Amino acid sequence: MNNYKSKRVLITGGLGFLGSNLAIRLVKEGAVVTILDSLDHRYGGNMFNVESVRNQVKIIIGDVCNRSVLKPLVAEVDIIFHLAAQVSYIDSLKIPLEDLDKNALSTLLILEICRELNHKPVILFSSSRMVLGYVNNKKFLETDYPKPLSLYGVHKLLSENYLNLYFREYKIPFVVMRITNPYGPRQQVKHSKYSLIGWFIRMAMNGETIKIFGEGSQLRDYVYSDDLIEGFFRIGSCEQAIGKIVNIGSGEGTAFREMVSTVLKVVKNGSMEMVPWPANYENLETGDAIADISLIRDLTGFSPAVSLEEGTSLTYEYYRKHLSEYI
Amino acid sequence: MNNYKSKRVLITGGLGFLGSNLAIRLVKEGAVVTILDSLDHRYGGNMFNVESVRNQVKIIIGDVCNRSVLKPLVAEVDIIFHLAAQVSYIDSLKIPLEDLDKNALSTLLILEICRELNHKPVILFSSSRMVLGYVNNKKFLETDYPKPLSLYGVHKLLSENYLNLYFREYKIPFVVMRITNPYGPRQQVKHSKYSLIGWFIRMAMNGETIKIFGEGSQLRDYVYSDDLIEGFFRIGSCEQAIGKIVNIGSGEGTAFREMVSTVLKVVKNGSMEMVPWPANYENLETGDAIADISLIRDLTGFSPAVSLEEGTSLTYEYYRKHLSEYI
Repeated sequence: MNNYKSKRVLITGGLGFLGSNLAIRLVKEGAVVTILDSLDHRYGGNMFNVESVRNQVKIIIGDVCNRSVLKPLVAEVDIIFHLAAQVSYIDSLKIPLEDLDKNALSTLLILEICRELNHKPVILFSSSRMVLGYVNNKKFLETDYPKPLSLYGVHKLLSENYLNLYFREYKIPFVVMRITNPYGPRQQVKHSKYSLIGWFIRMAMNGETIKIFGEGSQLRDYVYSDDLIEGFFRIGSCEQAIGKIVNIGSGEGTAFREMVSTVLKVVKNGSMEMVPWPANYENLETGDAIADISLIRDLTGFSPAVSLEEGTSLTYEYYRKHLSEYI
Repeated sequence: MNNYKSKRVLITGGLGFLGSNLAIRLVKEGAVVTILDSLDHRYGGNMFNVESVRNQVKIIIGDVCNRSVLKPLVAEVDIIFHLAAQVSYIDSLKIPLEDLDKNALSTLLILEICRELNHKPVILFSSSRMVLGYVNNKKFLETDYPKPLSLYGVHKLLSENYLNLYFREYKIPFVVMRITNPYGPRQQVKHSKYSLIGWFIRMAMNGETIKIFGEGSQLRDYVYSDDLIEGFFRIGSCEQAIGKIVNIGSGEGTAFREMVSTVLKVVKNGSMEMVPWPANYENLETGDAIADISLIRDLTGFSPAVSLEEGTSLTYEYYRKHLSEYI
């Protein structure tokens, strides 16, 4: 069933990786899509991302923390996918106030506008497993105790807490989507800070050598963008999800070195090299991290369909055609 | 043992209730005390609070979120008691951005200044059991899962997370002090938003009728200011407390109506009336809340010494002399 037909949807960060893939999907389903994006050169916003739907979406270039920009947009929609973010957990400690603004204040402003207007769109917020910190080498659950180890995680958790509170106090509906490691077409590959898969595809295309620290045995939950967007899509129209935190990922662990092997196999170029962990690696490495996705499966029937090799191939195909738009 | 002799101590919010009581104690112990306070009329800052030590402390009137004011103060001290706050959990939803600034951004700014200067004073932060939300009618522990039900609690928790993160990343030492329901001399009694005991003493002094909702059986952990300051004092010089969250309270539960009876008995005036809970009481009433204080007892030998009746008498004595300074 399609609950998005003629629905008015605002996507903050809608020119970025996930936002643009979602916008394309929603346009296809008949939604009326408005995109708010700052096109900040540090993040993933890129006009080329929405090339195929450029004339079917309204695009506002502006700051998600600017209340005057936000207010009329929030006022006129039924659903908000709030995806705009400072997206690098590594950078977050270098720009703490910026991270606070983009990853939490923006959420508070949206909620305050809803409260002021007594307007109750469903707000879907892109959170991260980084709110949890160490996840003890088991599949992580939505109910795990959050102990964020990055400012990025601290501020994503803050947004979650804001959403919980405004739901409780003002009945403004929300779903928190805790995302694992997404990859796929339309992701920035200017540097290695966001998606390693995209970055490694680029390196392999250039015939470069990809370094793997230690054994490369740490498990990650890589989720292909189409699968993730399918998760967004389902959870965004699921009544039972309102007021909940929901993991969205592949639900499967892939060793880091297996991911690199897959990239090399798909691109048929480049090489890998095993090197020792750097001195400060304890601060970088947070152990295995695989989402338990039972909740979203039970709520919506969500089931990821794209294997790592298949997703990597699709991503490679995209960058083979369009790399010049992303570097 | 006195670890404060000649120590340079900054107290933010040092003209407020807890800050001024602490300043007086630290001066007595030979510390070099600097107070930063905004004297914002909405909060508890009051020059009269430090009357007795006015010539022995440095007082700066300024905003705790003003980096230019903060920086030189942070730079020159060994210990920071960061007590400045928006102190009403009830008001916090009415002034969300102000609450964010005062209860969390201030902490981030202090930490950022420490990082910039590579300066590592011990930061003692006044947090609250409000970070936990419902506490399930058992004594609450430092390890309980935080689910704040107020913006005040959300932002106190945010400060805790900042402190944790900067300790981990930059070794800036901290102790989070989760405080229960403090009362005693020097607390604002202009309205009922902060301390009910102070407010009820004032009402009783005026011969007014104190209303008790429902049975008045909810248990609270009322802690007298001298006991609380003794806790601050001990934990602030306890090496083993660094990097920890520590409850400070009486560790004992007193029924709300018993507290009111004690006030009436001490003041020998006023009366009480039982009335039904108001319509929205579910949002006000968070169940019994009593701190488990084993951790601070084990770490420092802390043991609250002042009974509710004794503390109420001492508080009453204070306001009998000085009420005109507090209304």
